Amino acid sequence: MDVPETLIHMASELFARRGYDATSVSDIVEAANLTKGALYYYFSAKEDLLYAIHQRFIDAEMQQAQQIVAMTEEPVGRLRQLIISLVESIAEYHDEVTVFFREMHRLSPDQFAAVRQIRDAYQRIFEDTIAWGQALGQFRSDIEPRLMTLALFGQCNWTYTWMRVDGQLAPQQIGARMADLFLGGTLASGG
Amino acid sequence: MDVPETLIHMASELFARRGYDATSVSDIVEAANLTKGALYYYFSAKEDLLYAIHQRFIDAEMQQAQQIVAMTEEPVGRLRQLIISLVESIAEYHDEVTVFFREMHRLSPDQFAAVRQIRDAYQRIFEDTIAWGQALGQFRSDIEPRLMTLALFGQCNWTYTWMRVDGQLAPQQIGARMADLFLGGTLASGG
Repeated sequence: MDVPETLIHMASELFARRGYDATSVSDIVEAANLTKGALYYYFSAKEDLLYAIHQRFIDAEMQQAQQIVAMTEEPVGRLRQLIISLVESIAEYHDEVTVFFREMHRLSPDQFAAVRQIRDAYQRIFEDTIAWGQALGQFRSDIEPRLMTLALFGQCNWTYTWMRVDGQLAPQQIGARMADLFLGGTLASGG
Repeated sequence: MDVPETLIHMASELFARRGYDATSVSDIVEAANLTKGALYYYFSAKEDLLYAIHQRFIDAEMQQAQQIVAMTEEPVGRLRQLIISLVESIAEYHDEVTVFFREMHRLSPDQFAAVRQIRDAYQRIFEDTIAWGQALGQFRSDIEPRLMTLALFGQCNWTYTWMRVDGQLAPQQIGARMADLFLGGTLASGG
């Protein structure tokens, strides 16, 4: 890891463990074995680290989503892969996601708007996939794609509160079950 | 509202708007038009307010869930009502829920354990309903009731990030759609 990556990584860990306010810039540079000068060379304020933490995982999520879109040619399979990939990202970037969901409201208005924009683009990939599947008659059409996507994001994002990397089920298996539930629901098919 | 209720209400609002750390005991008593003495008569520390904020909505959720259990005699209808009631509670206690999900990690270990206990009891109502429905063949049996419940809690709890009390859909309507999605899934029934 280079210096900014090391700082982002260390800040994620400390913010997740102690909270954003309770962690000082000094705590971060000390834990990273760096100087304040090194930190301020890359980040002008603690807030910028919060922003960078978000970028770190949303960039990874976006890149994977775009790959899935390029590789899949039908909506149901695409959505299934998008769901699994999202749950895997949450497991991989667990500290970043935890910090982000707890502290997002602490971003400056400009940073918040920038984050909003990239999250909207990410959300649109899901909404478009559902709308496409509705047009083909593969998804139910009585509920808006936006509401379905928000329900799905809740289902997946919430895993950050309970998913354990060393748990009984691997993130990929949890993602597959989330996809099964979201697509097929919970009622028995004969019921 | 009596004095402790006024304080809890004001603390929820300020913690939700400014964050827990950025809100002082002085800010709360000032906004509530009370004295610090009044606050310390009921709450020995700011942390106790955080705990009380949680109690406020989990008590309401629990009471409603128990009423639904008493009034319903089959699992699918019971689960549907539990879902709608949860989404309605999140709308009603929006500030409390926001503060709780963001700041829960700030509770003392004892408080956290107490909260954990009541949340576990609440979660068990959902898990038992699903297990009952599985035993009757009404719910799919290939996914554990616990994982289904966590998926459902994600779907419902996440509404605190996007549900607007003055939005196009009333909380009751959002809850009904959440129930439709959770029970029936997103695939077209003929698909």
